[in-house]
Amino acid sequence: MPIFRKAALIGIGLIGGSLALDLKKKRIASKVVGVSKHTKTIALARKKKAIDEGSTSLSVIKGADLVIIATPVDTIFGLKKLILKYAGKNCIVTDVASTKEDVTACLGNFFPNYIGSHPLAGSEKRGIESACGGMFKGTLCILTLENRSSIRAFNKVRKMWRSLGAKVMVMKPREHDRILSFASHLPHLVAFALINSLPSATLGFCGKGLKDTTRIAASDPILWKGIFLTNKKHLLKAAESFEKSFSKIKSAVRSNDPKALEAILSKSQKKRESLK
Amino acid sequence: MPIFRKAALIGIGLIGGSLALDLKKKRIASKVVGVSKHTKTIALARKKKAIDEGSTSLSVIKGADLVIIATPVDTIFGLKKLILKYAGKNCIVTDVASTKEDVTACLGNFFPNYIGSHPLAGSEKRGIESACGGMFKGTLCILTLENRSSIRAFNKVRKMWRSLGAKVMVMKPREHDRILSFASHLPHLVAFALINSLPSATLGFCGKGLKDTTRIAASDPILWKGIFLTNKKHLLKAAESFEKSFSKIKSAVRSNDPKALEAILSKSQKKRESLK
Repeated sequence: MPIFRKAALIGIGLIGGSLALDLKKKRIASKVVGVSKHTKTIALARKKKAIDEGSTSLSVIKGADLVIIATPVDTIFGLKKLILKYAGKNCIVTDVASTKEDVTACLGNFFPNYIGSHPLAGSEKRGIESACGGMFKGTLCILTLENRSSIRAFNKVRKMWRSLGAKVMVMKPREHDRILSFASHLPHLVAFALINSLPSATLGFCGKGLKDTTRIAASDPILWKGIFLTNKKHLLKAAESFEKSFSKIKSAVRSNDPKALEAILSKSQKKRESLK
Repeated sequence: MPIFRKAALIGIGLIGGSLALDLKKKRIASKVVGVSKHTKTIALARKKKAIDEGSTSLSVIKGADLVIIATPVDTIFGLKKLILKYAGKNCIVTDVASTKEDVTACLGNFFPNYIGSHPLAGSEKRGIESACGGMFKGTLCILTLENRSSIRAFNKVRKMWRSLGAKVMVMKPREHDRILSFASHLPHLVAFALINSLPSATLGFCGKGLKDTTRIAASDPILWKGIFLTNKKHLLKAAESFEKSFSKIKSAVRSNDPKALEAILSKSQKKRESLK
């Protein structure tokens, strides 16, 4: 039996589109509608059978009992009034943003049935063109809760993610943002900075090392601008920690200290090898 | 017809072992001998048919008309006297080290037939266990020359690399070290620092992004210690360039400047997408 009567995706790009595909295919929602700024995206989402109905207007979400916001995180704040207008206060609302503190402060105040979701899926690709079914199978999805969060809404949202094959983990928004600032946002900042710092004449000599190290610098700048700005506090702290490590290695090089250098590199190597 | 009568590999790990395999298989040398500190490595190299003869003593290189040094770069300096003793002054000598200025200054003074080689191959793996035939096919190999370099030796070394399927490019040692400080050494420094800066509790939340960004931090610390220290001057300059880019992004985040932030990230994204 479907968990939701009508699920509305606001944003049907890589994540929103992949979600829509699974919600329909696995009959998690009886009806799936999608909102996009671009009519081309809507047409492609319909062609891929990701949505039953699509519109450039938020009015299409009317009557939805689940609204999933899958737009860049900094655009979420401007959507709350229209969601309230069309889907009403009691609708279950979730999002898929990579930061949670600011979003929760905003949506949690408007919607008693708001639950934060962060599926650790996706890639440097983007758009409905790259959306695919089964994207969340075997991945981790972090749900964020506050003390005031509705248990009924939480159970339904958790059931949805589990039906998509995701492993669900629960934490507070603040804790989520601190952990992700290290595990995801800092690596992106580093990759963007690294590729930026290379003289063009050296790019022809890049090997697999540089390519892998900077792969995520091909990610969407609009998306990542929003993530960085809505996780500013934690990201700047993570950046500081990185700068300390960077300086340590630099100092060992500058002072020609092979022992100190080997000790740091060995520690890094062991830590990298411990990643699963 | 073989190019060399007797090729001697000093160091038969990932690169040295792979080279030995190809030199024998493609009959580039009539005889291939290998030197390693470890009898186990010699036994495995013989079992893999990478070498005809192996020894823990450099005396095995006696009579070689080609000596290839494939040990960590900082150990090269200690080998020159023994190579001179056993293989003589006129033997063709090359190496596969990732830095060239210091090595050339050292070996070029001892051996008139010294030519620097840097095959842009290899990975974070290491040891004769991972050595394989055909490793250099389709890769780039940079040969470094000085004004005093022997053209005869250069032609033979170039012929060897071409026979292995590598595309050969020639530059001066200094130019090589400057380019590689950006294209390879800085990405390694960044990857080692990044994984080092992550609190252990956040490692469980790493996605493909962090894994790719830090893959090369699993590289051999002993090897990379030597590379960093023998390319100190250029590496510290490259690090400075990186720090500037990193600070620029941080400043845009700190000052909540979405326009500036998007501009830098877009520039990085385009640069990354231009990598072939």
